[in-house]
Amino acid sequence: MKLNCDMGEAFGAWKMGLDDLIMPHVDQANVACGFHASDPLTMSKTVSLAKQHNVIIGAHPGYPDLVGFGRRNMDILPTELKALIQYQIGALKAICESQNTQVDYVKPHGAMYNQMMADDTILETVMEAVSELDATLPLMVGAVPEAPQIKAMAKRYGLTVWFEAFADRLYTDEGRLTPRKEPNAVHASFELIEAQVKQLCESGTVTSGSGKTLAIYADTICVHGDGVHAVEAITKLRTIVDEFNRSNQSDYNSKLNKA
Amino acid sequence: MKLNCDMGEAFGAWKMGLDDLIMPHVDQANVACGFHASDPLTMSKTVSLAKQHNVIIGAHPGYPDLVGFGRRNMDILPTELKALIQYQIGALKAICESQNTQVDYVKPHGAMYNQMMADDTILETVMEAVSELDATLPLMVGAVPEAPQIKAMAKRYGLTVWFEAFADRLYTDEGRLTPRKEPNAVHASFELIEAQVKQLCESGTVTSGSGKTLAIYADTICVHGDGVHAVEAITKLRTIVDEFNRSNQSDYNSKLNKA
Amino acid sequence: MKLNCDMGEAFGAWKMGLDDLIMPHVDQANVACGFHASDPLTMSKTVSLAKQHNVIIGAHPGYPDLVGFGRRNMDILPTELKALIQYQIGALKAICESQNTQVDYVKPHGAMYNQMMADDTILETVMEAVSELDATLPLMVGAVPEAPQIKAMAKRYGLTVWFEAFADRLYTDEGRLTPRKEPNAVHASFELIEAQVKQLCESGTVTSGSGKTLAIYADTICVHGDGVHAVEAITKLRTIVDEFNRSNQSDYNSKLNKA
Amino acid sequence: MKLNCDMGEAFGAWKMGLDDLIMPHVDQANVACGFHASDPLTMSKTVSLAKQHNVIIGAHPGYPDLVGFGRRNMDILPTELKALIQYQIGALKAICESQNTQVDYVKPHGAMYNQMMADDTILETVMEAVSELDATLPLMVGAVPEAPQIKAMAKRYGLTVWFEAFADRLYTDEGRLTPRKEPNAVHASFELIEAQVKQLCESGTVTSGSGKTLAIYADTICVHGDGVHAVEAITKLRTIVDEFNRSNQSDYNSKLNKA
Repeated sequence: MKLNCDMGEAFGAWKMGLDDLIMPHVDQANVACGFHASDPLTMSKTVSLAKQHNVIIGAHPGYPDLVGFGRRNMDILPTELKALIQYQIGALKAICESQNTQVDYVKPHGAMYNQMMADDTILETVMEAVSELDATLPLMVGAVPEAPQIKAMAKRYGLTVWFEAFADRLYTDEGRLTPRKEPNAVHASFELIEAQVKQLCESGTVTSGSGKTLAIYADTICVHGDGVHAVEAITKLRTIVDEFNRSNQSDYNSKLNKA
Repeated sequence: MKLNCDMGEAFGAWKMGLDDLIMPHVDQANVACGFHASDPLTMSKTVSLAKQHNVIIGAHPGYPDLVGFGRRNMDILPTELKALIQYQIGALKAICESQNTQVDYVKPHGAMYNQMMADDTILETVMEAVSELDATLPLMVGAVPEAPQIKAMAKRYGLTVWFEAFADRLYTDEGRLTPRKEPNAVHASFELIEAQVKQLCESGTVTSGSGKTLAIYADTICVHGDGVHAVEAITKLRTIVDEFNRSNQSDYNSKLNKA
Repeated sequence: MKLNCDMGEAFGAWKMGLDDLIMPHVDQANVACGFHASDPLTMSKTVSLAKQHNVIIGAHPGYPDLVGFGRRNMDILPTELKALIQYQIGALKAICESQNTQVDYVKPHGAMYNQMMADDTILETVMEAVSELDATLPLMVGAVPEAPQIKAMAKRYGLTVWFEAFADRLYTDEGRLTPRKEPNAVHASFELIEAQVKQLCESGTVTSGSGKTLAIYADTICVHGDGVHAVEAITKLRTIVDEFNRSNQSDYNSKLNKA
Repeated sequence: MKLNCDMGEAFGAWKMGLDDLIMPHVDQANVACGFHASDPLTMSKTVSLAKQHNVIIGAHPGYPDLVGFGRRNMDILPTELKALIQYQIGALKAICESQNTQVDYVKPHGAMYNQMMADDTILETVMEAVSELDATLPLMVGAVPEAPQIKAMAKRYGLTVWFEAFADRLYTDEGRLTPRKEPNAVHASFELIEAQVKQLCESGTVTSGSGKTLAIYADTICVHGDGVHAVEAITKLRTIVDEFNRSNQSDYNSKLNKA
């Protein structure tokens, strides 16, 4: 099991997140690419920080909506969506290669991620974009009960998928994230977060809001790097995940190959 | 001798230039990368058009100034300038690779180009940016009497330079372009353009406004794709350059290697 | 009856539309405000041109989406939508006041216009935005059979509405514009355009695609300033509208007051 | 004597400054207008906060350079500079008027401010911009020994100027701010800040880095709302300025009229 976190979300003079404090504790950094957050210099600094901590780097492309942080649904035609995903991955690749490192995977951001998880035609466009550019780049998507169908779709595009679950979000009975406007959408206590992460590690399941147990296979768990207790929480989750990985002698790479 | 032209300068719904009509007649397309002009979809279409006509593709990075078309001087610190050049080249590389083609060279745009030609520290930053990313990418710069010093600088960065002269601009005695605000800055008649191109091909010189003959070694000549007579002029220059290349059995690649 | 046209849709170095040729023939210029098109200098030039031809000026606010020309639906929260409408109107007001003229009305652009006509809560937000800023500014909306409900809503906000019909678009049986993806959405011949304009003037109706006659009260007709035959078509429509206005001794202001 | 502070410098999801904590202690809020920082919703919230604390509102226009925070010199032609200043003031005016308040003055931001203070032709353009829009809006400029010449220039444009001094910056012998790259440019201790503010209040002078006493007439003192000790420092300066104003029974308005 791995931990991933959105990183490099500053923009020009504006800061966001505690990248310096979080980076040492995660495995995978989802690096913003300039459309919803970040800028070339921020990307360069973020890549340098990830490299220093042996954190692998994912391109985190978003919609062209800085003021909305890429969180607003936009109707973007498939040919344009493909091009703007490839553009952003390529921009980050160049920043990485200039520092003798590389982009290791792709994870769409915000509304693009949500729309991709809700609409198969958008997911297909995302897969086609990555596949055309470099089919060896895994695509990180939400861990949902429909994982087999997503893997089948990915196979048609020659792609590997990595499934991510969320540490601090309550799942619905359908294995989706409870919308943020509902009261229990985000786990209020660290105990709930801890229990969800342990359950994901140990049994590959989550318990939904109504008490249902859902099979949610996850390769990686998404943690959030902002908020006052972020660093403390991530440090603890790091320990939990490390212990799980050790005791299971889990081989991440073989798991990924199976995925 | 080659012909190069700025291409892909549309932005969203806004058109610019006659790319469809010009592309068949040039050798090298300088493709805008989204900071001063273009957008991912426009880049994708431009790469497709260049590929169709066997035109090689240059990344044409510019300052982050859409409303000013990258033509306004901006004070950008070297670390940021490096990152934004690498970002733009990488973005275009990804668009190219998604279409199974590639970026073949780099030519800065507008104010970045002018500031680079006027200030060696900026030129060094540009060279460092390209060199860090991919030292096999030639850098296209202005053909000036100081070419030997520029080649020496490029050598330190492991880079090849391609020198470009201008078909329609009057040169000063120092081998620079006469500023556009002066009356004769742009050749008003095709005869003057034709004579300058022939002289560049046949003797590797230009005649300055005061009548001085200057040694200006050029690998390529920059033509402009806008204006009512652009297509007709470029077609004629194509013929002149083709005849010169044939009669001299010139080997472009060997010339480039010497450059 | 009046003619209105979108104007000032250039952006920086990019041109759009034939403003110089169209402006003399319209009554109302919908001037883009920098979010979907235009920039401060373009706005200044457009205001100057409108003033020169005694054309009244409407603020034409759009979504913050330059690369999409404000034509893509975006989920924008009401408080933000209100603020960005007020921002854009104010920006144009200042450009106008600096030239001793004024903004005379407001007409939302593109996707904002379409979403406003399809969703009453968005229409309410638009009305609230205008009303808070200056309730003497009329709001231009689509002429639809539900005009009485729209007028009632406007009354609650203390606003006047101006209804606009479209010269070149086929109406559905519900009095909406036939979507552009359908084959007959845009009238292919000037005869159809001419007939629709005459019918709007003379009987306050349009004939839908299925042959139904619909009561569509219009204060103004929207014409388009791009395309090869735009100037010729607008010139002819000008004549038709002028003749109608003369023969009816129509008093535009009294009609507006009734609206 | 007044205190002014840059406010509303957030952008979308990105925060900046401690506006909530600073606003109660200042007299004048310089509100960013969307070109170098801020966005319509942030402007709306900032205006609301200023109004709540009876702080007067200044438009704080900047260069169109979000990623550079308007701090980079840009070559902008006078007609464009005028239009973008008027645009930004107008946008803020509309946000204010929608909340039944108003813009009370104008203070350019960052590189625009620095270039205006260094180059009279740019200062003239700024004055012309404000004068064309609304000559009753005072223009806030740097308090420098050349104040009489600036007042004379302003008089030609029918404008009032308000002079601002800086609490925490070391002055050169020429009455300019010591460049930030020099070691003592920013006062490191609150004692130095306090002494400078008292001296500005009591004697209308500052002491330069070399020990020279310079006459620097100031209507207002600029304080900075970021940094860990900002709130504490501003609270203390508030007390100093209040005491001075009380003991001198100073009439701010009559001082301004004389200025």
